[in-house]
Order: sequence, then structure tokens, then C-alpha cells
Amino acid sequence: MAERMAPRDIGEALLANALATGCGLAALILTFGEISGAHFNPVVSLAAAIRHELTGREATLYISVQIIGAFCGVAASHAMFGEPTFFASHHVRTGPSQWWSEFLATFGLLGVVMGCSHSHPKAVPFAVACYIVAAYWFTSSTSFANPAVTLARAASDTFAGIRPQDTLAFIAAQFTGAVTATVIFAWLLCEKTSSVLSNEEVQLAITRKLPDITE
Amino acid sequence: MAERMAPRDIGEALLANALATGCGLAALILTFGEISGAHFNPVVSLAAAIRHELTGREATLYISVQIIGAFCGVAASHAMFGEPTFFASHHVRTGPSQWWSEFLATFGLLGVVMGCSHSHPKAVPFAVACYIVAAYWFTSSTSFANPAVTLARAASDTFAGIRPQDTLAFIAAQFTGAVTATVIFAWLLCEKTSSVLSNEEVQLAITRKLPDITE
Amino acid sequence: MAERMAPRDIGEALLANALATGCGLAALILTFGEISGAHFNPVVSLAAAIRHELTGREATLYISVQIIGAFCGVAASHAMFGEPTFFASHHVRTGPSQWWSEFLATFGLLGVVMGCSHSHPKAVPFAVACYIVAAYWFTSSTSFANPAVTLARAASDTFAGIRPQDTLAFIAAQFTGAVTATVIFAWLLCEKTSSVLSNEEVQLAITRKLPDITE
Amino acid sequence: MAERMAPRDIGEALLANALATGCGLAALILTFGEISGAHFNPVVSLAAAIRHELTGREATLYISVQIIGAFCGVAASHAMFGEPTFFASHHVRTGPSQWWSEFLATFGLLGVVMGCSHSHPKAVPFAVACYIVAAYWFTSSTSFANPAVTLARAASDTFAGIRPQDTLAFIAAQFTGAVTATVIFAWLLCEKTSSVLSNEEVQLAITRKLPDITE
Repeated sequence: MAERMAPRDIGEALLANALATGCGLAALILTFGEISGAHFNPVVSLAAAIRHELTGREATLYISVQIIGAFCGVAASHAMFGEPTFFASHHVRTGPSQWWSEFLATFGLLGVVMGCSHSHPKAVPFAVACYIVAAYWFTSSTSFANPAVTLARAASDTFAGIRPQDTLAFIAAQFTGAVTATVIFAWLLCEKTSSVLSNEEVQLAITRKLPDITE
Repeated sequence: MAERMAPRDIGEALLANALATGCGLAALILTFGEISGAHFNPVVSLAAAIRHELTGREATLYISVQIIGAFCGVAASHAMFGEPTFFASHHVRTGPSQWWSEFLATFGLLGVVMGCSHSHPKAVPFAVACYIVAAYWFTSSTSFANPAVTLARAASDTFAGIRPQDTLAFIAAQFTGAVTATVIFAWLLCEKTSSVLSNEEVQLAITRKLPDITE
Repeated sequence: MAERMAPRDIGEALLANALATGCGLAALILTFGEISGAHFNPVVSLAAAIRHELTGREATLYISVQIIGAFCGVAASHAMFGEPTFFASHHVRTGPSQWWSEFLATFGLLGVVMGCSHSHPKAVPFAVACYIVAAYWFTSSTSFANPAVTLARAASDTFAGIRPQDTLAFIAAQFTGAVTATVIFAWLLCEKTSSVLSNEEVQLAITRKLPDITE
Repeated sequence: MAERMAPRDIGEALLANALATGCGLAALILTFGEISGAHFNPVVSLAAAIRHELTGREATLYISVQIIGAFCGVAASHAMFGEPTFFASHHVRTGPSQWWSEFLATFGLLGVVMGCSHSHPKAVPFAVACYIVAAYWFTSSTSFANPAVTLARAASDTFAGIRPQDTLAFIAAQFTGAVTATVIFAWLLCEKTSSVLSNEEVQLAITRKLPDITE
């Protein structure tokens, strides 16, 4: 339930301001990091499930709550600005360039989360916030990078919205980017680890980080 | 008396710049955190009193000094820009949307203060600053979130001011948001604690965090 | 000699951008903090001398190098933009409002340096950077707050310059603010320290933090 | 191979936004710092080679991958915005002012990297990001400060591009600045070290930091 607030920032149309989003994210991750892990994002929960840090059941619950939270956030925001609770967006966002942009944005987000969690866990809130500010500008799709937010933005007819029929391809691109990043960074970080730690420690680290091979 | 400076940033009308406010807050909390706790905000002192971290007398003193400080800050600012010391604001800020916005802004502020104090005490100055920058943009009321500042802004007839007759509802919304956050986050953080620590530690934590039941 | 670079940021006219200045300062303090203490500012060296952290001779040397560095910075900047090395400024900056503004800006800067050095030494670079960003906006004089920079800006006829005949009053206001802050914060921080050291005060502090069980 | 992402930020023409670049850099250094050292920049690798922290072979490999990565980044960015993969830039950037600007920018970057690595290794990502934001504004060449990025920008005909025939002088200025900084800061930091540590420690530190004298 702690995820309720994030989408108000990220998914909310009128406020799609890179800096505000980044700052809000940093504050929220610092606040909720110890309570729920501060996922806020289905692809982060999915990556955690792939690496066996969450069970499938937990991940499903997290993702459901994230989607509900995103819609609550949009509703809360619309109420603040005296607008109807939900209204379908007419903002067209489609085409290979946009999908490639979402793929890259989500790939990068997962890379930052995994790389930074591994080496500087305390700096994760700031690294993620910095990444989102940068990605907002360097992508052509303004870096949604979050399936829950993508769905919720379809219910907000503002300049940051997205037409309901365009969400599917965005979400597919996001999941593809996330899975690619999970695989590549698991290999990068594992290789790094093996060159530093002793054999037994590597065994432990691999067992903990990677999907169980005996499955 | 250390609270004198904050309102110059937060409450001052001409400078209602999100980034400057956030940066100023970070600097001030880093400076005064060890001296007075860097409250600057009556709802923060109230929340501390609810959690028995301040006595009622201390909280009353803190809040009085905060209000005096906010007015001093407005006067100091007006002097810098060659304006009269105080002059009643004519900026209308009223209606359920604005109240809801202040409720949310103060709820979030208290959540960030409590959640982050609990898990990353050293990051509180940055988390609060980030939150204020974000809240400035994502709310429709530009996130006053501070009763002392709300009062002081009524004495500044600039675009960041607020009509004296509108302050009461704003302050009521702020206190409601603060109390709601104090209750919800006390429960969230307490639940988290109990799932991690041993029984005795939980006892201690509960005793420390919650109002004394024997009262 | 390490002070050479700062004024390029702070004192340089064309680039008087709050964010860039703040960021540049943070980078420079992080870089030079361990080498020379990263003073860059005569009032900071003066305050150190008042508190007997620098000898009078050291402070004089520091201040001389700071002034030379500020002029070198202005010259280096002018060369980058293809302008004459030095040219007198015609920007009028005078009057009690401006002096009051410089007094406050320098008072605050010294307060942040002293308060934060005392309780969070590692956060000083960020606190000073944040303060300068904020002060740039909340003062009517754009917060020179540095006598060396004030002198050097008189040699740059751009919008951030200052007429040579206006510098004296600015520098006087800055030194007054710095000395006032040194006295007030020495008292604030000393009082705090003494309450930490004595046993009885610690007892009291603990009693104050926890709910009284005997209630 | 980890260097692939940086140039998308730094070298990409349409997004040459100081803040986004700085934030992106902070995120990337936090992510890749433990994997590859997060060089991203040939002059940083060169400086490491001069100080015998990388062998000549390693530095050559790093620099090759950085250049390949920069071009991949430009290609990835162009694909996001539906532009041709590569097209020669027509943006004229030449003359002594620009070269002096690149010299200073690279000198400063290396100074920040070396000074901050020495005294606050954990703050390097933030110091570098802050420096780049500031340098973007305070230089007349918008602070390329990176030979790989300079080459890649020649393949992007946007406002942040650079004509292929102008790159050589830029790269020469960057290397000159980097070598100058490496020499000056090695001396500054070494002198500082000798005044603090014991004799044996100094011996060790000098042996580690400076080129081997017995060569």
C-alpha cells in the first residue's frame, strides 16, 4: 500500500516535469525503501522475481497494488486540479522510434537499479532519481519506463497522457527492455564478483542472485 | 531562535521558486538539525508531540517561535526588496481542490519526515528538500504545507501570498493531513519493525515510538 | 593556489547562473576541501581566524590568493568568450536594500558553514552549494557574499558586474554579516556542545526523548 | 563494454541539456563504477595510465571501447528520434577561445576526478556530475571535455554537433588540459599527503600514485 504516492508524480499528466519527478522519486524511495523495497514499478518487481528475490505470488501482489496505486494517484491529482476523476487520453504515442525509446529507457532504469544496488545500495534513491531526470530528456517518449504508470496515464487526457490503444506496445517494449537488462546486468555483475571474491563466496552470490539452476 | 531563517525561503512571496526553496531547506536542515532539530514547521513539532518526542510545553514554544520567525523572515525579505514591512495579501486561495491539495502536501511531508527519519536519518535533509521541490509542482496550491508560513504569507501581497481570511481553512487542512500521516506512518513503521526485530526489541521500539499506553 | 578556479564560477558575469554556481561550488569544495580547506572566500578565512583556526598570517595569505584567484578567473573567462581581459563594470548596485541583502546573504553563508561543519562535516560541500543556489534567488543583490568575487566582478562589464565605487559598501556589509554570524553561531554551537558533554544533560535528554514510564 | 551508455547523454546532440547530462552521468558512474571504473572518457583513462593505474594495453582497449560506445550512443539516439544513423555535422566550433575553453574544461574535469577520488571517493559520481553541469554553462564551448564524445558528435548534424575538421584541435586541447591537470594535481595531492602521513606511508603513497622513478 506504500506505493500509493509515486504515481501521483510519475504518472500524473499535468506535472510531467523531469525535476519534480526525480526529486519526488528520491524522497519516496528514501521514505518507503525500508518498508516495501520502494518498487513502485512492475518491471522492477518482475526483475526481482526473475532473480528469485520475490516469489511469483509476491510479485503479482506488488504489481496489482502498483496499478491500483497509479490510478489512485491520477484520481488524487485530478481532484487537486478540479478535473474529472478519469477521462480517456487522446495523446497519440506509437511507432518504432517510441517503442525503441521505451525499450532503452526501461533497459537503462533496470541497469541503474541493479548496478547501483550491487555496489552502492545507499545511493540507489539518488541514482534512480538522476536517471529518471536524464531519461526524461534523452528519450523521445519522455521515458514512461513503468507499465503501471503507462496504464494510469491512459486515464488522463493531458499532454502527458497516452491513448489506451497505444499502451500495449509501450508495455511490451518496457518488459522486453527490463528482461534484457536483467539478463545482461546479472552477467556483468556476476563476472565482476567472480574476479574479486573467493570461490565459496561466488557460489553463494550466484545462488542468491541467479535463477536456481537445479530447477 | 534558530528557526528564524527558514521562512525567508519558504514563506517569502517573491521567491517562491521550487528549486531555491528545496536547496535552502536542505542547507538549513543540515545547519540547524543538531541544534534544534530543524523543525521550522508547526505540523512537524505537533507530530513530535503526538509521538512524545516533545512535551506539550516544548511544542508550544517551538510553534510560537516558528510563527515569529516566519513574520521576521517576511519582514527581512521585504526590506531587501525595498517594500513595506507587512501588507495584507489579496491573493485568493480557497475551495475544496486547494484544501485537498494542502492535505496531501502535508500528509506527504510528514510521511517523508517519519519514514526517512526511521530508516535513513542522515538523508532527511535531502529527502525533505526533494519532497518540497516535487510538491511545489505536483500540487495545485504550490504546497504551503506549513501553518507558520501560511500565516506569514498573509502579510505579503505578492503572487505567493494568501488572503488572511483563507488561511484558516489552509491551516486546518494542513493539521488534518499531518495527524493522518502521523497515525498511518506510525502503524506502517511499527508493523515493519515487528517483522524484523526480536520480541524484546519490538517492545522497546513500541514504547519509544507510540504514546504511553499507561497514561 | 587551489583557490584559482572558484571565481570563474562565482565571479564570472556572463554565467551568473544559480545552478551552475551551486554545482561548480560543490565540485570544487569536494576537490579542494582536503588540500586547502576550500575557503575560496575571504569572509570564511576571516571567520576561521576569529575562531583561531587560522593564524592572522595564514588568513592574510589566503585572502591575498583568493583575490588574485578571482581576477585570474575573470581573465580566464573573458578569454574563453573572446572579450578583453578586464574592463570596468558600469552596473549600479547600491542602496540600503542591497547592503541589507548582502549582510543577510553573508550571515547565512557563514551560518551554514559553521553549523554544518559542526554536525555534518561531510555534507558541507552540498550544504554550501544548496545555500548559494537559494541565496541567489532569495536576495535582491543575487548574493555576492564574497569580497574577493565582489572586487573581481568590478573588472567585468556584464550584467553580473558591479561598479568599482559600489564595491566598498558591499564588502563592508559582507564583513559585518560574517562577523555577526561568527559570534552568534559560536554561541549557538557552544551552548549545544556543552549540553552534550555533561552527564546530567544527557540524562535529561534521554528522559525527554522517551515517554516517561513513571507517568 | 559498460561504456556504451554514457555518450547517449554526453555526446547526443538534441539533448545537450546540462542538467540531464549531469544527472545521467551521476547515475551511470554509480552504476558502472564498480564494474569498469566508469571511465567513459579517454582522457580519464589516459590519466590513469600516466599514474600507472592502468597498463598501456588496458588504456588502449578502454579508449577503443569508449569511441565505439560513443558512436553506438549517437546511433541509438538518432533511432529514437527517427533520424538517419549518422550524418556529418556542419556546426563550426573553432578558434583559440574555444580551444582555451576545452583546455580549461578538461583540466577542471581531471582536477575534480583526481582531487575528489583522493579525499572523498564515494562522492566522485556527484562531484563529476556537478562539475559537468557547471562547466556546460561556464565555458564557451559547452564543455565537450571528452575526445570520444567529440568524435561521435561529428556524426550528428544537430546544434550540439561539431564539424569533422574541427575535432582535431578540440581533442588536442582536451589532451593538453588533461596532462596538465594530471601533473599539477599529482603534485598538489602528493604535497598534501606528505604533510599528513608518516614517512613510510608517504613512500607507499608516492610509489602508488606517481610514475615509477626506477623506470
